[in-house]
Amino acid sequence: MTEGPVEEKERGAIRKHLEAVPAMSDTDFAFAVHATDGQARTGAITMPRGKIRTPAFMPVGTAGTVKAMYASQVRDLGADVVLGNTYHLMLRPGAERMARLGGLHRFMRWDGPILTDSGGFQVMSLSALRKLDEQGVTFRSHVDGTAHHMSPERSIEIQGLLGSDIQMQLDECVRLPAEREAIEKAMRLSLRWAERCRTAFGEQPGKAMFGIVQGGDVPELRIESARALADLDLKGYAIGGLAVGEPQAVMLAMIETVEPHLPSTKPRYLMGVGTPDDLMRSVARGIDMFDCVMPTRAGRHGLAYTRHGRINLRNARHAEDTRPLDEASACEASRAYSRAYLHHLVRSDEILGMMLLTWNNLAYYQDLMAGMRVAITEGRLDAFCEETRAGWARAERDAAG
Amino acid sequence: MTEGPVEEKERGAIRKHLEAVPAMSDTDFAFAVHATDGQARTGAITMPRGKIRTPAFMPVGTAGTVKAMYASQVRDLGADVVLGNTYHLMLRPGAERMARLGGLHRFMRWDGPILTDSGGFQVMSLSALRKLDEQGVTFRSHVDGTAHHMSPERSIEIQGLLGSDIQMQLDECVRLPAEREAIEKAMRLSLRWAERCRTAFGEQPGKAMFGIVQGGDVPELRIESARALADLDLKGYAIGGLAVGEPQAVMLAMIETVEPHLPSTKPRYLMGVGTPDDLMRSVARGIDMFDCVMPTRAGRHGLAYTRHGRINLRNARHAEDTRPLDEASACEASRAYSRAYLHHLVRSDEILGMMLLTWNNLAYYQDLMAGMRVAITEGRLDAFCEETRAGWARAERDAAG
Repeated sequence: MTEGPVEEKERGAIRKHLEAVPAMSDTDFAFAVHATDGQARTGAITMPRGKIRTPAFMPVGTAGTVKAMYASQVRDLGADVVLGNTYHLMLRPGAERMARLGGLHRFMRWDGPILTDSGGFQVMSLSALRKLDEQGVTFRSHVDGTAHHMSPERSIEIQGLLGSDIQMQLDECVRLPAEREAIEKAMRLSLRWAERCRTAFGEQPGKAMFGIVQGGDVPELRIESARALADLDLKGYAIGGLAVGEPQAVMLAMIETVEPHLPSTKPRYLMGVGTPDDLMRSVARGIDMFDCVMPTRAGRHGLAYTRHGRINLRNARHAEDTRPLDEASACEASRAYSRAYLHHLVRSDEILGMMLLTWNNLAYYQDLMAGMRVAITEGRLDAFCEETRAGWARAERDAAG
Repeated sequence: MTEGPVEEKERGAIRKHLEAVPAMSDTDFAFAVHATDGQARTGAITMPRGKIRTPAFMPVGTAGTVKAMYASQVRDLGADVVLGNTYHLMLRPGAERMARLGGLHRFMRWDGPILTDSGGFQVMSLSALRKLDEQGVTFRSHVDGTAHHMSPERSIEIQGLLGSDIQMQLDECVRLPAEREAIEKAMRLSLRWAERCRTAFGEQPGKAMFGIVQGGDVPELRIESARALADLDLKGYAIGGLAVGEPQAVMLAMIETVEPHLPSTKPRYLMGVGTPDDLMRSVARGIDMFDCVMPTRAGRHGLAYTRHGRINLRNARHAEDTRPLDEASACEASRAYSRAYLHHLVRSDEILGMMLLTWNNLAYYQDLMAGMRVAITEGRLDAFCEETRAGWARAERDAAG
């Protein structure tokens, strides 16, 4: 079974259905910077489904759910936007089906903005028998082996069927380290696909399509990519192909290389990043948006991110520790459950352990972003980041001592 | 490593700690029947940690968590009491450790009454290398292979260390079908253990120890067991050894056999039962309390219990069904999520699917109990049960038609 573009008739019916769903205001997509501190900036994206305060961390809702969380909890933690994975959703439940069901927002009960990736990254990492050429990528589903074709146009079509508010261009992401030739080839293909995606996306008031800077760890390729994308006058720019195996210093150097060549009036999104330390160092270099599975995935593996650093709840030293993860947190998961209980839940493979640690981790990530937004406004981001790191180090010394 | 009774000194420290935890009132354990309808009755157990409205369904919190639920959600659904499994908790985190941590209530953040089983049933079904004699049962943990001994006295001691409000005698439960000789032997051993447990429990104002009627599917053994236990003047009586493989008719016949021989002034608890239909038929025969893993376990396997009957969300026919499980439910999980979304979550093995279906199922079970309590008060339990079954049948006809 090969799933291709739908018939025009069905597509019309689906689009009509989709358009009827969101209670859209007249707001177009807009980005405003309210304050800067060095290269760092804080501001907001406004769009019909709501405001995204930046710098923003977007929890990952892979298959239509931020794993182990009710959508209302995600919202209550201060997340303004969540990410959906096009690859997962096109395979299950399927893009056309999602459209018939009224789109991803209604499906997962998230009424704020949703950003979707293009599907390309996960086609490369998860699917079988993929074949990539100028036209796009052909692959087999890791779920049921069905054959699929994804072109730049189909990626945008799928993201539209899902009802995505911020859509990403299809790109080719090269895992590092890689030969310059391969990096360059992928970067140029990604540029050509960016143009095709821009055409396919067209004019959609209130929605946005972002381009993705590629170029691996080669500064001149990164600059060429950024400049060419800037010329396309897109509504936002992502930096892709980082946090794919290279040291943090390389990632930060690439951000510094690219940043001057991206329009300062457009949001900058660092894809798939990262640790709390990565977020702080990237915000200081001008990044406005992030997504990462780290807080949710770590939460399902017994790891807690806190003001006191990263805590492995599986460790026996927590077995009789009646302290919560963070006595000062506003999050119930962080404040009201003992480490001893969390240790027990993790050791017993209890679902509640995953629920509580995911909740704690997303709370910590959102609190960290909120802290940075305030610090930038007050012109003290560096001090904030130093205090945050000092908190982690203090706890590590206490644990060792 | 063999875990036996703790040293007297440590035990003293632990008990002191435990006693300091609950904000106990002067209420003793008391049971009052407020209304009857045939053999069915509705009333309440009052005890220091709160009131248990009967007939009551007790969600199972096996290892210190009602799986995939926050404790506050369980409470909000109308559950007045939860069950903890002594076998699981004695192995992990361990009874003495639990006492040092302040008891199970604090550990799992449940401040209402907790009933614990004796551990005996799960020793028989889960552990390895068990050896049973007059003194008790020796076994190896299924978690880590450690050796343990459980006597009637140690079972009561462990339940005390956990901080249990309603404790169960150690008994021997025979899987049916079985030879009369084996059933009789186990019943008599259980009676002797009941006396030892009663002595070990002593006088504990505000708490209760229940005896367990055994006797398999042999009426005269059941009657002998019930009468002998009644003579012990315990605070409540359970019927054990049912729902272990026999037809529903046999189970109901045994309830009818036993019921006249149990004091009408004491609560009657049918252990490990059952389906919604089992609950209705057992309440009609005079049962006041139930526990069962069915709603929670089924929820983790894609099955929903609803006013419209049991729904298997894995079934492809739900893939584009935008209806909720029950549009009239007060529970968000039942009312606000589409069947299509639940189907997607179940098919994708998403934790949220288990969270939502467990939530729905416990809501349905609690609603069913609340409905029966009102119906008994109004003298219309039979009509209520008929209407409930008609609702299931109607939905089945609709699905087939």
